[in-house]
Amino acid sequence: MSLRPIRLGDLAAKLGRELEGDGDVEIGGAAALESAGPGDLSFVRSRRFAGLLASSRAGAVIVPPGVDPGGRPAIRSAQPGLDFARAVRCIVPEPPRAAGVHPTAWIAPDARVDESAAIGPHCSVGARCAVGPRALLHANVSLYQDVTVGADCVLHAGCVLRERTALGERVVLQPGVVLGGDGFGYVANERGVLERVPQIGRVVVDDDVEIGANTTIDRGALGDTRVGRRTKIDNLVQVGHNCEIGEDVVIVAQVGLSGSTRVERGAMLMGQVGSAGHLTIGERAFVAGQSGLHRDVPPRARVMGTPAREERTSHRMLAALARLPELLGRVRAIERRLGKRDGGGD
Amino acid sequence: MSLRPIRLGDLAAKLGRELEGDGDVEIGGAAALESAGPGDLSFVRSRRFAGLLASSRAGAVIVPPGVDPGGRPAIRSAQPGLDFARAVRCIVPEPPRAAGVHPTAWIAPDARVDESAAIGPHCSVGARCAVGPRALLHANVSLYQDVTVGADCVLHAGCVLRERTALGERVVLQPGVVLGGDGFGYVANERGVLERVPQIGRVVVDDDVEIGANTTIDRGALGDTRVGRRTKIDNLVQVGHNCEIGEDVVIVAQVGLSGSTRVERGAMLMGQVGSAGHLTIGERAFVAGQSGLHRDVPPRARVMGTPAREERTSHRMLAALARLPELLGRVRAIERRLGKRDGGGD
Amino acid sequence: MSLRPIRLGDLAAKLGRELEGDGDVEIGGAAALESAGPGDLSFVRSRRFAGLLASSRAGAVIVPPGVDPGGRPAIRSAQPGLDFARAVRCIVPEPPRAAGVHPTAWIAPDARVDESAAIGPHCSVGARCAVGPRALLHANVSLYQDVTVGADCVLHAGCVLRERTALGERVVLQPGVVLGGDGFGYVANERGVLERVPQIGRVVVDDDVEIGANTTIDRGALGDTRVGRRTKIDNLVQVGHNCEIGEDVVIVAQVGLSGSTRVERGAMLMGQVGSAGHLTIGERAFVAGQSGLHRDVPPRARVMGTPAREERTSHRMLAALARLPELLGRVRAIERRLGKRDGGGD
Repeated sequence: MSLRPIRLGDLAAKLGRELEGDGDVEIGGAAALESAGPGDLSFVRSRRFAGLLASSRAGAVIVPPGVDPGGRPAIRSAQPGLDFARAVRCIVPEPPRAAGVHPTAWIAPDARVDESAAIGPHCSVGARCAVGPRALLHANVSLYQDVTVGADCVLHAGCVLRERTALGERVVLQPGVVLGGDGFGYVANERGVLERVPQIGRVVVDDDVEIGANTTIDRGALGDTRVGRRTKIDNLVQVGHNCEIGEDVVIVAQVGLSGSTRVERGAMLMGQVGSAGHLTIGERAFVAGQSGLHRDVPPRARVMGTPAREERTSHRMLAALARLPELLGRVRAIERRLGKRDGGGD
Repeated sequence: MSLRPIRLGDLAAKLGRELEGDGDVEIGGAAALESAGPGDLSFVRSRRFAGLLASSRAGAVIVPPGVDPGGRPAIRSAQPGLDFARAVRCIVPEPPRAAGVHPTAWIAPDARVDESAAIGPHCSVGARCAVGPRALLHANVSLYQDVTVGADCVLHAGCVLRERTALGERVVLQPGVVLGGDGFGYVANERGVLERVPQIGRVVVDDDVEIGANTTIDRGALGDTRVGRRTKIDNLVQVGHNCEIGEDVVIVAQVGLSGSTRVERGAMLMGQVGSAGHLTIGERAFVAGQSGLHRDVPPRARVMGTPAREERTSHRMLAALARLPELLGRVRAIERRLGKRDGGGD
Repeated sequence: MSLRPIRLGDLAAKLGRELEGDGDVEIGGAAALESAGPGDLSFVRSRRFAGLLASSRAGAVIVPPGVDPGGRPAIRSAQPGLDFARAVRCIVPEPPRAAGVHPTAWIAPDARVDESAAIGPHCSVGARCAVGPRALLHANVSLYQDVTVGADCVLHAGCVLRERTALGERVVLQPGVVLGGDGFGYVANERGVLERVPQIGRVVVDDDVEIGANTTIDRGALGDTRVGRRTKIDNLVQVGHNCEIGEDVVIVAQVGLSGSTRVERGAMLMGQVGSAGHLTIGERAFVAGQSGLHRDVPPRARVMGTPAREERTSHRMLAALARLPELLGRVRAIERRLGKRDGGGD
């Protein structure tokens, strides 16, 4: 990892935040409070974590209002986490991308690869593909025919994009992502045997989407499977055919969306959630981890459990459930008492 | 996507269905009712969807009995979904497979690749492998030693088939499928440390099986892991060592089967189901999404939940659970009443 | 599969166990009791399985104390499963590893590959990587820059190790494993839009770890994600950034660990478990399949369910839940009775 040291004062200026103390301190790295050394920048996420400052060896810190940096040079920020992330981007720059096609890569004669793009070892780029400026394909990436990859995309090693998949700009795919696999569509024929329903749609991924390792997104059966701008999808997620995922959606690892699920803008699905098909998960809804969805989730709702219920209802049910064994005893006691009084029996 | 236009009359004849209206209409594409244009064929799945016809711009439709195509040329079918799927296969033919070995592929000298097979860029085919007629390996497929791939198989990019894996005919593997990885078998030794149990079995996949992207099927420890004819497995499924999956089974995405699970003919496992090892899931059983199986599932049973119970039992329990918070209140009221009458206490 | 036959007497000596009967019998294979033939060794795991012996055609068996091999030549062992595993390793040796770099592989000029290591077809080994003695990379493995692979590691086909990943010795990665993908770290900026938090840590995997097919382990955000010695991870598992997994841990398929989960030595997580972030799962704890963890698990605790509870509590709750529909009826009966007696109402 190559680092680019920076004066603390210059960093504060870049971030547009106020400097406190010696701006000439040189920052050569970034680390958590517990592990930072004298050359490192660290940060205090919120007042709750201020206690960690005392024992930290960090040379400089980004601190929220109301936290005393204890004599250390500091940058004061209303959003320490955000500013620390930006600071790290300054200190640890992305490795430079060497443009060009690796000699072991195979490019179809009629594919168009921008001359500023980089194609890694053992990639294959199929007929009529278009790879945009500064796009970066790591090793062993396979583009089938008619795939388009927009400017500044990063496709990590081993990704597979099947026919006609379309990526916008600045899309990042972690290793092993599969886009455009055939959807799971079958129909029983006259003899009760399943026949494949041809899957002739595409996967279309909009600008600034990021997709995690070994995640799979199936192509549409008819029409397309779509992922909207800035949406972030974690590892090992399954997105079925014809799903429509809106903008600014967050989908955590191992979620499974059945076909034609609609996830509206800003919704958040925590890990291992499963959704039956043809549902709508409304704008800014929150679905807790491992929930199982069998009906639509209204906008801004917070749901949990299998089958998923409104969060408060679910909490009440869980609390009641914990008291159920005791309740059984209480009902038995009542029955005994009533039985005794009545001389038993009903 | 290259299309092969067809006269509606010819299509009706091919499907063996009755034509209504102008058979000379040329069909140049296929789409859902909502998005179809004047050159497209569409379909009405059942009477329930007939309302969508009025606003559709589709040039022709396949309709079930009792649905009025509204003056549009139509094909009448008792199974519109099935006939539409077959129509799409006519209109959108599979791209032709160019036979031959890509110059960047590596084939072991003693492997036998049929001359009508196609081996894509950067594939590797190990010692003593056999690849049958018209089989198609897309880019970056790895066959270890002694693998057999039957006629007309399609292995999408990045699939890995470890030693001695055997595929029947017409098997389709979506990208990233791993067959024959070592099973998760360990045994504690004298010092309590886990030692690997050698996994010397194979994965054997029968004719017409289809397996989804990034799914993993482990080889048998002793003996084989088997997948029966026509079975369909979705994306990101885990099949443990020595599982025996019968014919015509359907396994939806992210299901996990522990070792030695037996899934009988025609069973259906919905998404994210998990099964403990050494269980039998009976013929034509249905297991609802996210269920957790801890005992055998009888033939034709319908089960759900964790631990999985018979569907009706489970529904009754869930309904009762929803009333539990209220029930707590009712029992409290009874106790108060009895306490009052008795002057409190028991 | 090439086999190395062995005299039963020699095998008993190798295992340090007592021989019973004819030591000159030659063992040419290994199989389960049900499928073994006259040339095969088999074993009886425990007394419970002794009944299978009568109908088995196995030529020799490993049996626990108190089980009569019925005249068959046998090895007597207090740990038949362990000794059988070791016997299989004798009879079915690992295929020899041919050292050297495959002509289709690409090795960066400044990478160091030990001359006894084997690099398979279409691998790529990035700048400044170090691959140790006798390490084996199967086809299509991608090592980014600055990766270290220790002695005797086996990396199966299609594995991807991103920048600075470090493997100890004898680590085994099944096909499709992704180590070092960017963690799922974002922070909302001034406009409420998510910005990526740079992920600058590594994945560090210690000696004798084994990781299953298509499993993904994300690099640390700051600092490292760590997997301790001898830990075994199954297929399709997700390990988030900055997790610390101790020694001798067992993680079954499709488990998902959110960021900064700490799994202590000897803990066991069964299939499809999910864990919220920043939790500690204590030493030797046992987490049942499909559990959802929302708080720490104490050392040696056994927990299950979502949210996970102590096993006994959970069993009691489940038992009570099964009686809930009946309980509703009983409470209704009490109310009716009290209402009747009181002339209705409260």
